[in-house]
Amino acid sequence: MTDEAKPGARPDRLSRRGLLLGAAVGTLGASANLTAARAQGADQDDIVDLAQAHPFYGAAEQAGIKTPQQRFTFYMTFDLTSPLRSDLQVLLARWSAAIAQLMKGQTIGQVEPLSTDAVGFDTGEALNLGPASLTVTVGLGPKVFSESYGLAGKKPALLRDLITLPSDAMLPGLTGGDLSLQVCADDPQVAYHAVRDLARIAKDSGTAATRWTVMGFGRASAGKGQATPRNLMGFKDGTRNIKEDADFEKHVWIKDAPAWQRYGSYQVARKIQMHIENWDTDRVSNQNSVFGRHKVSGAPLTGTKEFDPPDFDKTDAQGNLVIPATAHIRLAAHENNGGVKILRRSYNYTDGINQFGLLDAGLLFVSYQNDPANFELLQTKLGASDALNEYISHIGSAVFFVPPAPREGSYIAEGMFD
Amino acid sequence: MTDEAKPGARPDRLSRRGLLLGAAVGTLGASANLTAARAQGADQDDIVDLAQAHPFYGAAEQAGIKTPQQRFTFYMTFDLTSPLRSDLQVLLARWSAAIAQLMKGQTIGQVEPLSTDAVGFDTGEALNLGPASLTVTVGLGPKVFSESYGLAGKKPALLRDLITLPSDAMLPGLTGGDLSLQVCADDPQVAYHAVRDLARIAKDSGTAATRWTVMGFGRASAGKGQATPRNLMGFKDGTRNIKEDADFEKHVWIKDAPAWQRYGSYQVARKIQMHIENWDTDRVSNQNSVFGRHKVSGAPLTGTKEFDPPDFDKTDAQGNLVIPATAHIRLAAHENNGGVKILRRSYNYTDGINQFGLLDAGLLFVSYQNDPANFELLQTKLGASDALNEYISHIGSAVFFVPPAPREGSYIAEGMFD
Repeated sequence: MTDEAKPGARPDRLSRRGLLLGAAVGTLGASANLTAARAQGADQDDIVDLAQAHPFYGAAEQAGIKTPQQRFTFYMTFDLTSPLRSDLQVLLARWSAAIAQLMKGQTIGQVEPLSTDAVGFDTGEALNLGPASLTVTVGLGPKVFSESYGLAGKKPALLRDLITLPSDAMLPGLTGGDLSLQVCADDPQVAYHAVRDLARIAKDSGTAATRWTVMGFGRASAGKGQATPRNLMGFKDGTRNIKEDADFEKHVWIKDAPAWQRYGSYQVARKIQMHIENWDTDRVSNQNSVFGRHKVSGAPLTGTKEFDPPDFDKTDAQGNLVIPATAHIRLAAHENNGGVKILRRSYNYTDGINQFGLLDAGLLFVSYQNDPANFELLQTKLGASDALNEYISHIGSAVFFVPPAPREGSYIAEGMFD
Repeated sequence: MTDEAKPGARPDRLSRRGLLLGAAVGTLGASANLTAARAQGADQDDIVDLAQAHPFYGAAEQAGIKTPQQRFTFYMTFDLTSPLRSDLQVLLARWSAAIAQLMKGQTIGQVEPLSTDAVGFDTGEALNLGPASLTVTVGLGPKVFSESYGLAGKKPALLRDLITLPSDAMLPGLTGGDLSLQVCADDPQVAYHAVRDLARIAKDSGTAATRWTVMGFGRASAGKGQATPRNLMGFKDGTRNIKEDADFEKHVWIKDAPAWQRYGSYQVARKIQMHIENWDTDRVSNQNSVFGRHKVSGAPLTGTKEFDPPDFDKTDAQGNLVIPATAHIRLAAHENNGGVKILRRSYNYTDGINQFGLLDAGLLFVSYQNDPANFELLQTKLGASDALNEYISHIGSAVFFVPPAPREGSYIAEGMFD
């Protein structure tokens, strides 16, 4: 925070032309703008490049898990409406082809067919917008692996519905689903276009219908070397998130499984409502005790800097624990959970104003782990004791198996139809 | 659209460091990235600089009207809950001071007070995020100018509730309001933080309570020299929008009025639901007839390029009008409305999935004009005849007087309390 303002005439948005000129002929135009930006105390990553693309094919795992977190998400689940194995197979193939196009910033077909008496295949609102770091991550729910589709024998070993957890306050219509799409991008119109056109493919083919959805937003990511984003309680969220390759290998990816499952993962999605107006009336000293961290710095109450390791044994002069027994970071810490870690990839959401005239908002919590029981272990403990429970309700929930990425020429989960 | 992809390793988001180096020492790092971006067919303005700030004080008009359109909005209206003139006055003063801070990317007070037994004044989720081109535009509804506040004599000459229009299908809870905040930014968390903390000031002081809100998103703007954004029907929206200073002077700003109103404007907000799943089943030839434009190019049906002037008299070989009598652009055109123009500053919105399992989405239409009757003139014609009516419903509505910007040391609408 600084008090320096740079008023003057309203400056134009830093144009790409400006950047190109700056880079090519060495003028100081772009550099001066950016120096001014730095003087205003902005974060390092205050430039978003919407031409950035991620590949759909070729990596071991699907994009959208290890990928640096983008600024928006549309998370959507679907019910299968066709009992036919071939319909499911065709949908996964068509979704895969469409996603590969979308992630390149392309349409999934003609917006305005040569014969304009035809219906457009792509709805067109993202034309020319570029890829904007779009990723679409496809998940398969428990019902996919049923006799109906001849897939009962293919069920990933640990896939099952989540147990009922102490924090559950589920709302009808915000749970479950047979398929999931986690669509993330740095531009909301690019993200919305993707989920809309993929939902349209599912519906028009009679194979799957929308079930529930959350639109989420966030800032920056908790990726390696990136600033930690804040949730709508104002606290940094993700300081101790998984960042190292070794932790992905150990905690996120499925390894000991048939080839078509390897480098898959289990996705847990929870819609967590925050009672933000109650939270906002709470003293900061209590808020800090709830999380076990200082609000501004993000440092644990036993430290001074964000990434200082928490000292869970430290007591004050009166012998009380400095990080309280009910603090969120104590209950969630891998040190206190037999080494268990999960990858969190959450977004803030708002549903506007609720029926009581209160601001309605919260967190779309999405985690990836190689065993859903790891999420349950942590959430059982948190749901029972976490001081945060006074301010949150878990109102939505679902679990999916996320297959690995297809190789080019193949499609998501093709191997399970062998 | 091009088929060129640039896969390779997942490229990192173009970093500010990269740009700075590119500009300062003349390497080709940034330039090469940007050339690659161009090759992928991205728009000109695919780089968003989140350090950009607009000033709150000093201009004639409030920011957020002529300002190039940002990517997100939270639009919110409020009911006055205090009958006291001084409460209204203090709220406008406190909002002004807070908005000035927010637009610089600063907090509105301590997030973590030195005495942590205090409640934080700023909720903290936008700490260090930078200004992100934030603008907050304050509007005053008809009820402000009542005897209760001693302001009946100060009412702007043309402020009144809108007449009932042929397109109205209003939902309870989505109409009216005594105050409005149009919060726009290039980062949603920055925008949400602003509206949340301003709503908190209103509520905690007992002066005003939230009424209705819409979160909107869009891409680029229809500003001078910028690409025209598309609505969720896939059509360019704003090709003929006001861009020239002379049009702002003639159609947007209030001039012939007391000093404290000059360079104010009237704001009309409409929540327009689009039946996008019906729209998506329509042939593109019909969609083009509904708008009077080609979907992809945006050209009028009588032309070949987006900015070709429409020829409303042109007929085809059979003598039929090329731009149909019920086409949206014919009914809305200034040529066919006695020269009337309004500034549109609209955003797309989505409300997820509705009770029928359909994607629920539409347009937050916001217009500025120096007479609300100008909006009524256009909407009366459109509501009665527009071919688009089959696919839309106007479900929310409100009208506000937007005072000019305060000078530093003053606050919004201070002059009306003289």
